Amino acid sequence: MEGFEEENAVRGISVRKGMSVNELVCGMRGCAFGARRLAHAVDIYEEMLKAKATKFLGLAGALVPAGMRPVLAEMLRLRFVDVLVTTGANLVHDILEALGEHHYFCCEEERCEGKERDAKLREQGVSRIYDVVVKDSAFAALEDFLHRTFEKLDHSRRYSIRELLTEIGRNIKDEGSILRVAFENGIPVFCPALADSIIGLHAFIFKQISPLNVDAFEDLREINEIYCNASRAGVVILGGGVPKNFILQTALVAPRGGFDYAIQITTKTPEDGSLSGATLEEAISWGKLRENAKAVTVYCDATIALPIIIAALRERLGR
Amino acid sequence: MEGFEEENAVRGISVRKGMSVNELVCGMRGCAFGARRLAHAVDIYEEMLKAKATKFLGLAGALVPAGMRPVLAEMLRLRFVDVLVTTGANLVHDILEALGEHHYFCCEEERCEGKERDAKLREQGVSRIYDVVVKDSAFAALEDFLHRTFEKLDHSRRYSIRELLTEIGRNIKDEGSILRVAFENGIPVFCPALADSIIGLHAFIFKQISPLNVDAFEDLREINEIYCNASRAGVVILGGGVPKNFILQTALVAPRGGFDYAIQITTKTPEDGSLSGATLEEAISWGKLRENAKAVTVYCDATIALPIIIAALRERLGR
Amino acid sequence: MEGFEEENAVRGISVRKGMSVNELVCGMRGCAFGARRLAHAVDIYEEMLKAKATKFLGLAGALVPAGMRPVLAEMLRLRFVDVLVTTGANLVHDILEALGEHHYFCCEEERCEGKERDAKLREQGVSRIYDVVVKDSAFAALEDFLHRTFEKLDHSRRYSIRELLTEIGRNIKDEGSILRVAFENGIPVFCPALADSIIGLHAFIFKQISPLNVDAFEDLREINEIYCNASRAGVVILGGGVPKNFILQTALVAPRGGFDYAIQITTKTPEDGSLSGATLEEAISWGKLRENAKAVTVYCDATIALPIIIAALRERLGR
Amino acid sequence: MEGFEEENAVRGISVRKGMSVNELVCGMRGCAFGARRLAHAVDIYEEMLKAKATKFLGLAGALVPAGMRPVLAEMLRLRFVDVLVTTGANLVHDILEALGEHHYFCCEEERCEGKERDAKLREQGVSRIYDVVVKDSAFAALEDFLHRTFEKLDHSRRYSIRELLTEIGRNIKDEGSILRVAFENGIPVFCPALADSIIGLHAFIFKQISPLNVDAFEDLREINEIYCNASRAGVVILGGGVPKNFILQTALVAPRGGFDYAIQITTKTPEDGSLSGATLEEAISWGKLRENAKAVTVYCDATIALPIIIAALRERLGR
Repeated sequence: MEGFEEENAVRGISVRKGMSVNELVCGMRGCAFGARRLAHAVDIYEEMLKAKATKFLGLAGALVPAGMRPVLAEMLRLRFVDVLVTTGANLVHDILEALGEHHYFCCEEERCEGKERDAKLREQGVSRIYDVVVKDSAFAALEDFLHRTFEKLDHSRRYSIRELLTEIGRNIKDEGSILRVAFENGIPVFCPALADSIIGLHAFIFKQISPLNVDAFEDLREINEIYCNASRAGVVILGGGVPKNFILQTALVAPRGGFDYAIQITTKTPEDGSLSGATLEEAISWGKLRENAKAVTVYCDATIALPIIIAALRERLGR
Repeated sequence: MEGFEEENAVRGISVRKGMSVNELVCGMRGCAFGARRLAHAVDIYEEMLKAKATKFLGLAGALVPAGMRPVLAEMLRLRFVDVLVTTGANLVHDILEALGEHHYFCCEEERCEGKERDAKLREQGVSRIYDVVVKDSAFAALEDFLHRTFEKLDHSRRYSIRELLTEIGRNIKDEGSILRVAFENGIPVFCPALADSIIGLHAFIFKQISPLNVDAFEDLREINEIYCNASRAGVVILGGGVPKNFILQTALVAPRGGFDYAIQITTKTPEDGSLSGATLEEAISWGKLRENAKAVTVYCDATIALPIIIAALRERLGR
Repeated sequence: MEGFEEENAVRGISVRKGMSVNELVCGMRGCAFGARRLAHAVDIYEEMLKAKATKFLGLAGALVPAGMRPVLAEMLRLRFVDVLVTTGANLVHDILEALGEHHYFCCEEERCEGKERDAKLREQGVSRIYDVVVKDSAFAALEDFLHRTFEKLDHSRRYSIRELLTEIGRNIKDEGSILRVAFENGIPVFCPALADSIIGLHAFIFKQISPLNVDAFEDLREINEIYCNASRAGVVILGGGVPKNFILQTALVAPRGGFDYAIQITTKTPEDGSLSGATLEEAISWGKLRENAKAVTVYCDATIALPIIIAALRERLGR
Repeated sequence: MEGFEEENAVRGISVRKGMSVNELVCGMRGCAFGARRLAHAVDIYEEMLKAKATKFLGLAGALVPAGMRPVLAEMLRLRFVDVLVTTGANLVHDILEALGEHHYFCCEEERCEGKERDAKLREQGVSRIYDVVVKDSAFAALEDFLHRTFEKLDHSRRYSIRELLTEIGRNIKDEGSILRVAFENGIPVFCPALADSIIGLHAFIFKQISPLNVDAFEDLREINEIYCNASRAGVVILGGGVPKNFILQTALVAPRGGFDYAIQITTKTPEDGSLSGATLEEAISWGKLRENAKAVTVYCDATIALPIIIAALRERLGR
């Protein structure tokens, strides 16, 4: 029967002791559902790297508090990423860790929440992000760092948000910091909704007393140029939100015909019509993705899928 | 048994022909699960209105393309909302409709998507948002409108994003427009990630040839002041994302002790730790919500829940 | 542009005070996303009723504890349903309420759970179902009722599960009981996994001392015959699970060519490949649904969608 | 600050080339969100095995069509499972593969579905399960096998469903078959809703012409005895549904005080109140889990999580 030949059979996966992460992922090629998608994502990412595509990473969700910071920093260091677009929160928590602060597991139980429980955390002076907390005292260190950094800026000029983030990266000492690694490797970091973060709040507070001139739209020039100049362009989307759209919308003004590669890792499904849950096929109708783009969505918690993908890629590429 | 008395029994709901939406919602008070949450949301919103709380609406998800524009505009007109924080996309589609453009159902079937299908839509010159499309030609009208509006601005001064949106609202003729109604009623509209939208793209294009100076952080002053000056503060969150956080973070710098009322309508659950899915209890640990705030999350497609809530409220308030 | 004419435009919904539930649903016809699906579901159900289709209801999820019992009983009474296929749990809780027991709201908060909280409920002698509880003492009344009913059976014959449930319905006094209403109206109730419920546990306990001969497969004859004899066949699926498949699989042995109408109300999406989340399109490939079947999935908590659908139908049909 | 010391800090995960699956999982112990849950699940499963607990596996969702059959069979062979409770569908597809039939990837694209597409699959004589299909011709081989097996039964006696499945396992030749491996290793297989499967349909067809007497409740005796006799009891739940409840309800009649270990892998969240999505904490209120049970829910596609867990366990245990 056409299309349903032996070579298209689901062969299934066998696991054995001591197998490497890449062997596991290769085994998943013979499976369906989520496992197949995960294996497909690694294959596409590998091809994206080998084709020397310009790789955009969209980062939403509290991945830094969840412990993904070392993986993300390594992705930049290894040049698995050429452009980072992120929510402000991930940058806030990256800086907190760079300043020696920590996130803490908030309880033994699966669910830490509840009105009484969270009110008690409030009394204890910690703020919760799902199953971890951060001490309120950490934010004092952040405030101090940010104001010192803002003071060093050239107050006579206008900055783009990307330029502001480069300056923050320049002032971070911690080599494990995403912003620091981005700075060192010349990887631009965009954060269109930076006002929607504690960095934004401190920029506003600083602005009350000193000049700080950051343009709301200037970044579009730079990211559009990068996209236009790419011989091939790929996108890795963790979690949707503003970063997803901000990367994909570059295709609306550029004459490139859409991204060539796309990987989306999300737990959001398309049924409520939101952009975060929108399929990559939908992006084809907009011209954001080429019709023949290599593309896959992995419906999985990124804290599970991302380390697997990066470990498998490192093995394949020998880096 | 303490706490489990007759008056706390689930009585269930009976439906009858011709019952009003508010009667339905009142019946849901006797139910559990989602129905109870929906009934609770209406009760909290009613109390919020009667307490003359300052009401912040966070708007994410493609609610305008989905047909919620008349409901949203009416919410502003009736002063069910005092401050609107939104994604750029909802504003883009509000303006498109204001210019006489439409969204169209894209197919008879449940699922319109697929690589081939979306590629064909691309050829036909329409872009898909779940089960509706918008014609690419509509965006030419948008471009024209935006550039004409930008030209009218005072190019010697710096604008906040809110001010820019007020000017756009001033230039819209359509009385059904959210931006127009907001302008007419003096309701500020914030959109921290405006760069992440087609409005942002045109602002950037305009900026290549003419001065346009919009500040990335200036809005924080205004929204924080509104929050600080509120005798009581309430928030209605549709769909998470940047608007949710942007509203709630005002509580981090203000000495008010958190929001007094909160309603969240979302299909995103907390398990992947993202802010969009975060519970309102989590917000208590941050001081964004008071411990004794009236708060409920309704896990439901907003296109179903929102018309129900507003119809019930109108009936209760006789407006 | 072909297919995207004025008459296919999303017109959106306006709400007004005092509008009836059916007016709301009719307004949702002009919307997209979930609202459109909900409106579509009511239209299909109405057509199903007018076409005198044989209507199968698949019932999974704890809808009785959640307060849907009066709606479900009314659906049987009004003959909106001709065949009921259910999980055992809904029958257990129907009988509990028929015996005068109640479900109770377990707390003021949104989330009642947590290890400590649930351990305390255990001490208090109540068992939790999401945000409601049932007293353990209620199960003693159930045990007594079931054993008395089992004793009245003809112990020399073999029963089908449907026959056993008819006998239970016959012995229930409460006119609000689903099983009672089904018995009175001659509506067969199937529960293929009855062993997977407290009714099953008591059947097993009773069997230790008295003969009780219930056949595992006998029901298939009856349900298949009903399906085969239907001039037109429709299915309403609440929540997936065994009831969904048990109804749809009747199409595999019968020469009817699949169901003519299908409505599915669920919060489960297809991405993990489970049958509960499977789309109705998938059922077409199996021949469970006709290719031209009228079919829609509403992604919504059934405690919200079901009362809306039934209230709208009652208004349309004047019953 | 009490409870938030250095040793409770989220350390994050670093990945390196060639790392083994177990090394990855151990790294996830330092993460939060889903990664932490996954690592926790492996630790609990390891403890369960070392404590010689009686291990119940609940199997729902189309895991066999998705390629998990080799992993599942290996779990039985290695005695990672002592009792299997499953949906009928997984057994149907296990037998199909044992008879040399295959599942096939149905398309290159992410989404294969759509009315037209599925109607075409119907014409081609294949039936779809998410992204795989099975040929209708395969079911003829299944029918032949089942009827030959039913003919060999002792038609004068009454069987439990478990006994019937043992006889099917005895007649399977394929050493990769779950039912065969269960038979060879004396592992009981329960399937309370067997009537809700193609095996059930053929049992019913066979019964039209020959005696076949299978009791609906008899299995409860055996599974309850196994649970009661366990020194320690653990449960691994893949996907919810009938298997989840059927295993947990054994705790309602037995004086053991609840399961000691529980792992749940699911994509279903608790918000709609269904049993499939119910948390393990809820089970504590019922006495199904001990208050101090080691328990974790991993919100993840089982086709991703299961191979990881089993590969890590094999490495830890050196099997």
